[in-house]
Amino acid sequence: MIAEILSTGDEVLLGDIVDTNSAWLCRELTELGLRPEAISAVGDDAGRICAVIKTISQRADLCIVTGGLGPTQDDITAAACARAAGTQLAKDANAFASMTRFFDQKGWQMTPENEKQSLLPEGATFLENLNGTAPGFDIRIRRCRFFFLPGVPGEMKEMFRRQVCPRLIEATGNRDTLLIRRLTVFGLPESEVGRRLADFTDQYPDIRLGFRARFPLIEVKLVDTVADPEDGEAGKKNDPGTKGTEAGKRIGVDAQRQRGRMEDALAWAAQRLGRRVVSFEGLSLAQEVGRLLSSAGQTLSVAESCTGGLISNMITDVPGASDYFLFTAVTYANSAKINILGVLEETLASVGAVHEDTAGQMASGARKVGGSDWAVSTTGIAGPSGGTAEKPVGTVCIGVAGSNGTQARRFVLDTGDREKNKQLFAAAALEMLRRALSEKVAP
Amino acid sequence: MIAEILSTGDEVLLGDIVDTNSAWLCRELTELGLRPEAISAVGDDAGRICAVIKTISQRADLCIVTGGLGPTQDDITAAACARAAGTQLAKDANAFASMTRFFDQKGWQMTPENEKQSLLPEGATFLENLNGTAPGFDIRIRRCRFFFLPGVPGEMKEMFRRQVCPRLIEATGNRDTLLIRRLTVFGLPESEVGRRLADFTDQYPDIRLGFRARFPLIEVKLVDTVADPEDGEAGKKNDPGTKGTEAGKRIGVDAQRQRGRMEDALAWAAQRLGRRVVSFEGLSLAQEVGRLLSSAGQTLSVAESCTGGLISNMITDVPGASDYFLFTAVTYANSAKINILGVLEETLASVGAVHEDTAGQMASGARKVGGSDWAVSTTGIAGPSGGTAEKPVGTVCIGVAGSNGTQARRFVLDTGDREKNKQLFAAAALEMLRRALSEKVAP
Repeated sequence: MIAEILSTGDEVLLGDIVDTNSAWLCRELTELGLRPEAISAVGDDAGRICAVIKTISQRADLCIVTGGLGPTQDDITAAACARAAGTQLAKDANAFASMTRFFDQKGWQMTPENEKQSLLPEGATFLENLNGTAPGFDIRIRRCRFFFLPGVPGEMKEMFRRQVCPRLIEATGNRDTLLIRRLTVFGLPESEVGRRLADFTDQYPDIRLGFRARFPLIEVKLVDTVADPEDGEAGKKNDPGTKGTEAGKRIGVDAQRQRGRMEDALAWAAQRLGRRVVSFEGLSLAQEVGRLLSSAGQTLSVAESCTGGLISNMITDVPGASDYFLFTAVTYANSAKINILGVLEETLASVGAVHEDTAGQMASGARKVGGSDWAVSTTGIAGPSGGTAEKPVGTVCIGVAGSNGTQARRFVLDTGDREKNKQLFAAAALEMLRRALSEKVAP
Repeated sequence: MIAEILSTGDEVLLGDIVDTNSAWLCRELTELGLRPEAISAVGDDAGRICAVIKTISQRADLCIVTGGLGPTQDDITAAACARAAGTQLAKDANAFASMTRFFDQKGWQMTPENEKQSLLPEGATFLENLNGTAPGFDIRIRRCRFFFLPGVPGEMKEMFRRQVCPRLIEATGNRDTLLIRRLTVFGLPESEVGRRLADFTDQYPDIRLGFRARFPLIEVKLVDTVADPEDGEAGKKNDPGTKGTEAGKRIGVDAQRQRGRMEDALAWAAQRLGRRVVSFEGLSLAQEVGRLLSSAGQTLSVAESCTGGLISNMITDVPGASDYFLFTAVTYANSAKINILGVLEETLASVGAVHEDTAGQMASGARKVGGSDWAVSTTGIAGPSGGTAEKPVGTVCIGVAGSNGTQARRFVLDTGDREKNKQLFAAAALEMLRRALSEKVAP
């Protein structure tokens, strides 16, 4: 089955927005076992949209189209679709009823422009949008089944999951669910991760292996298809027909075997990647650190210089961080390092702000001032300026303080970009903290 | 002239990466006056890449292709291009010499896989890559001129600017430069910005108006074409032939007039947007706050609760922030608010952590502890949990302290997403600080 993605809108072609919808849809289709073969994008031009729909209708079996279903003049996707299908727009009673409900709920007045949105190509099946005014639709043109969805990501995603997914599963007869495991890895380039896992497919030919860069982490994804209706990550479907039957029991046994094989594969990959594995559940560094702290009932303070609040921001992006995170001091000025964290003036005068001794004192100071079980600190040079021959841009000293003392280390990690350097420094600090935590408080 | 973009790579089609290259190239081409009409993406499949290159070679005049020029087995774009052009791959002496230099510089050993990269389609002109091993090339196939560039964003951008841009300017005979002005706006939805500027095009028909969402800011872009070779934003070209001649003087006068008209247009738009304009130079909130502080020689401390370090991180993303930024306390725990910032226990007991009084005390405490001229503070509920009927998720209290006292305000700003709420809270805090600064220290 050939699947494609089409996104429409001048904002994509002008480069005003990055087309994250297509990437999201590719990932979702891939997880359904439908590998997209092409992505296209065209502007708000009825002629070009019509032409590309015609082309796709001749070469693909499935196409998800996003954008251009709104109320304004440049929302012309439905009209272009009707032209490509050789049909007309007509008022769709279901679409109109759904929009009426939506406007009533919001207490809004429907305008003639909104009413226009209930015009769908003849022969299309309406797809309800619970989060906005733009209705979607499902239509076959030549060999291809098209799903038209709005371009607003929140509306598009909800409609894809609730309405398109079940239709795709039904249409493809694909009653399998997916078993997915994710490993996150820090400290190896993607090419090296690939090299270490090069013979994975020989070992586990049925498990699909994928990599995804989530800078500065690499995510390793293992995907298998499971025949058991109640198994798998999302429990995407349920087939009561086989429950309790002989066939059902057989499927259950197979699924059990597949799950065991997946655990083997995970252990095999983890063994190849060694200490570089951050999480067996696809967690980010901040999430894994949070998990370790929560499970041990311990608390954390942070002292940041060159990372400027980024570590703290990463930690507090995790819901529930207030259970273990107490306090951060971002001490850019030396006076703040001295006054708030109790770094010794002599230390700063003799070895400077970017030094293991300073990092260590910052960490133990933050632990004391914050009254926490643990503290992590950074002091370094993110660039673009401020580097010297002895301490080039990219130098960072990291301290970790716990109940049994403080350790500090120096790294040189330069990406050539200030913001990326901050991200790398923050990740290195969280990784050093994670390793200290796993030794002391794990699991 | 019909321009298109093609990106290749399984990682795009699997949704493992978002194709930011295409958005960037669209923006660059648009600024050169070449509006792209389509973006396509295909996976690492020689047959499909060849087919799409053939199709584009018949319908477009210009195409920028990215990806698939690396050393591994799935880097097959050059071979697919040769097939589409009906030619062969051949070792390119310039490409090989450039790669040899690159490897020598790095002290690396060239592998046979790397040598393969110097094979280009016959008839192609080599484009040097100073930042990586993958050489680019420039080739005409049927009506279309193709530029092939590597997919690594840093390499691609540098090669586009240094090698493709000048060739495009030469090929299109477009000797105009672009005059671009950017306004950043905070606190209005994009639709409202559009409504307020709806009759801009009637007033200034020659100036192109564009909007771009840079959440939570809206960027308003005004673009005009200037005939003066030495004018315009980037000074993208220079035509000594008209210098000092009558034609040169006439162009100079026209350019002067156009620049004046652009300033008029900018003032007209700013007047419609009123106090919502953050910067007339397209600066972000953190950049504008930094500019105001730097120009006044004043300093800043920050006290964050719900924003968790984000404000601090935004401020320190700006190079040179150490000139004005001294200290941040992220006081998640009430004990930290009391011990570090001197918030009164009675205040926390009577009105709670999320209150204007607490925000005010946090700001004046941070100003005192940090020893700075200014301080800004946040305390609120980012969600998803923690809201009450009286203080729902999205409630944030912001304090600003300066030499003539402290002010504090409450907002309710809920996007339904924890990270987006943090961004919105941080922006609202920086905006309140910016307004206080503009009154006191402007310009």
